[in-house]
Amino acid sequence: MTATGPGTATGPGTASVTGLLGEIADVGRDARRGGYSRHGFSPVEGELRTWFAEQAQRRGLDVTTDRNGNQWAWWGRPGRGAVLTGSHLDSVPGGGAFDGPLGVAAALAAVDQLRAGGFTPRRPLALLVFTEEEGGRFGVPCLGSRLMSGSLGADAARRLTDRDGVTLAEAALDAGLDPARFGRDDAALAQVGCFVELHVEQGRLLDRLPGTPPVAVASSILAHGRWRFTLTGTGNHAGTTEVADRRDPMLPAAAAVLATRRALGSRPEARATVGRLEPTPGGTNVIASSVDFWLDARAPADAEVHAVVEEITEAAREAAAEEGCELTVRQESFGDTVLFDPGLRDRLAAELGGPGAPVPVLPTGAGHDAGILAARVPTAMLFVRNPTGISHAPAEHAEPADCEAGGRALAAVLESLAGGGS
Amino acid sequence: MTATGPGTATGPGTASVTGLLGEIADVGRDARRGGYSRHGFSPVEGELRTWFAEQAQRRGLDVTTDRNGNQWAWWGRPGRGAVLTGSHLDSVPGGGAFDGPLGVAAALAAVDQLRAGGFTPRRPLALLVFTEEEGGRFGVPCLGSRLMSGSLGADAARRLTDRDGVTLAEAALDAGLDPARFGRDDAALAQVGCFVELHVEQGRLLDRLPGTPPVAVASSILAHGRWRFTLTGTGNHAGTTEVADRRDPMLPAAAAVLATRRALGSRPEARATVGRLEPTPGGTNVIASSVDFWLDARAPADAEVHAVVEEITEAAREAAAEEGCELTVRQESFGDTVLFDPGLRDRLAAELGGPGAPVPVLPTGAGHDAGILAARVPTAMLFVRNPTGISHAPAEHAEPADCEAGGRALAAVLESLAGGGS
Repeated sequence: MTATGPGTATGPGTASVTGLLGEIADVGRDARRGGYSRHGFSPVEGELRTWFAEQAQRRGLDVTTDRNGNQWAWWGRPGRGAVLTGSHLDSVPGGGAFDGPLGVAAALAAVDQLRAGGFTPRRPLALLVFTEEEGGRFGVPCLGSRLMSGSLGADAARRLTDRDGVTLAEAALDAGLDPARFGRDDAALAQVGCFVELHVEQGRLLDRLPGTPPVAVASSILAHGRWRFTLTGTGNHAGTTEVADRRDPMLPAAAAVLATRRALGSRPEARATVGRLEPTPGGTNVIASSVDFWLDARAPADAEVHAVVEEITEAAREAAAEEGCELTVRQESFGDTVLFDPGLRDRLAAELGGPGAPVPVLPTGAGHDAGILAARVPTAMLFVRNPTGISHAPAEHAEPADCEAGGRALAAVLESLAGGGS
Repeated sequence: MTATGPGTATGPGTASVTGLLGEIADVGRDARRGGYSRHGFSPVEGELRTWFAEQAQRRGLDVTTDRNGNQWAWWGRPGRGAVLTGSHLDSVPGGGAFDGPLGVAAALAAVDQLRAGGFTPRRPLALLVFTEEEGGRFGVPCLGSRLMSGSLGADAARRLTDRDGVTLAEAALDAGLDPARFGRDDAALAQVGCFVELHVEQGRLLDRLPGTPPVAVASSILAHGRWRFTLTGTGNHAGTTEVADRRDPMLPAAAAVLATRRALGSRPEARATVGRLEPTPGGTNVIASSVDFWLDARAPADAEVHAVVEEITEAAREAAAEEGCELTVRQESFGDTVLFDPGLRDRLAAELGGPGAPVPVLPTGAGHDAGILAARVPTAMLFVRNPTGISHAPAEHAEPADCEAGGRALAAVLESLAGGGS
């Protein structure tokens, strides 16, 4: 089984991965930021959900939405030991076209290829679309899979608010979901034999390997958390307030941003980023009364993440005290280091690469629903080469040939897992 | 004429300043920031304009809107040598109730008091409401008076955009104005004999004086400009991008924010503030592709403002180079130091204070339409005591008794200027 090589026939009547992506290329474009802004429980996400349901139904799959808003499309009767694949359709603000949708498109294309090859699954097989994976609207990434797996409580989730103060409970109602049904879904998880998510790589590890292979298998995900820092000072007039009377929260916020880079100096594998910072009220001629910023921190070990956050918090606290500002820090999410199922990982790498030449096995710093589910069920990921490594940005790219190679690899994996003697 | 003292009768049938402010207390409240967000050419500003027109008409004044969107309410026939008073009704985002509306309410109350006293102006007298004084929507403060006086060109103004990319030309059309008519209005200015603006003080100079006098006359306004800094890096994934591959514009932006405070170290009378900072795309798990921030800088001398901006620009440039980011800096507005008309200043201070005891004469760091008009016509300002000094924030306050004292002082000034032998 060397499905990732060129020239593997997909047969007539099968959709291409890039063709499927092309169908949603106009949905949710962000004119201001570039790229896409497709957030959970929004009309744009609703349009994408409808598109997925139609695609699945066109393939004779039975579409259901679970209590947490995730979509399932079953090939055959639902049941225990099911093989699941899928990803998400939402994006970060101003994100790329591949992060999420590539895995959904590849899953649909894989169904076509398997059908065209006369394959019928012996184990139940389902395509899955998770809701609000990026946390672009409500701040908590992997919302759908966290709720399903129980790593995020339903009460805490319902109280989450977006930038306009809309709660997740309200947004879910608007999207036609019942937030009262949110919560850990053991019945759904009990059906899962394994989950495989295909995703565009979000770095350049594949591209830097000899021969720039198109597909890899994931080994691990960095431990990862998000913290919300709130600095409170005194709002006042920018022109009349003397330095001695200023309690300007922008200054300790800036000091904390600079501390993120210092904290990485001795930790080459750690990450610390402030990509969102919001002064209130945000007027040009106004000293801010408060500043909120979000720290995204990751590292190979949980303790290292916490050490990074502690170092940055300390810098913020010192600068806040110097300016007479208050600091509060709240953890919005945290996920331990994920090690994907070793047996599944090695099996897929071997099968995809052919005898004696497994495809590469690579770590990633990016979080995924597969990383959340890995705590409950055997889970694997496939990565498709990203020639620039850029992701979470409009310039995110994967070559069409690599996307199709990913689709073929996923079809081969599903054939092996759902039809073979596993 | 000691009009600021307590006990000056205002007669029956006259509105109080605080009563007038109370009529608009519910218009444009900002639930998220607190206070008010009343921006130029918005439905909220439209409501306030309608309110002012109705108040003026109720008093028999003739209301017109000039080519730049400023409202005029004439007591008697328009003509040369007119005495003007007024202020603005727009606010900063999350601003207070007094900055602007106090001067408009005091002008209306002053008309009532003059009428009740049987006064008829010998010179033309008009109340004026300037549009978009704060620049809260289109970035350029004193938009209405700058257009009128010609210190901002009509073409440049029409191209200004708000946060949603709406141009001033589009917003003006939506508000029922014709942006093609924008521009220097010499015909309007030719009618002006003098302009007096009453305003809440935006510092604590009055409050710190012995006896905490309720009213002062302005001497000068700091030189003042706004600069937009744009730092451009590379948008990328917060989890997968190694430090060596990062070009994160948040870092030089933070360095520049810290430089604002350093630049004031040797310049006690200068001001430098960053109250607005916007990363793009602004996602938590995204390295920003660009960051815009706005520097508000002021000082007693023009050269000192430019020295402050140069020092901060240099710090931003160095930090940008270190991170591999690009920096562009664009001046959005600049106003030289304003010295109000000395003759008018001394006359008002003497008349309001009584023989041998003029009211205080004070400088301010805050910009005003009066500061823009001062370049073209004799101009004066009255300040009403602010017990905390806080302004441009929901906590901005003036005591009711001081507001009424301000109204009486303005009535006395108008009586002297429009009715007396000036």
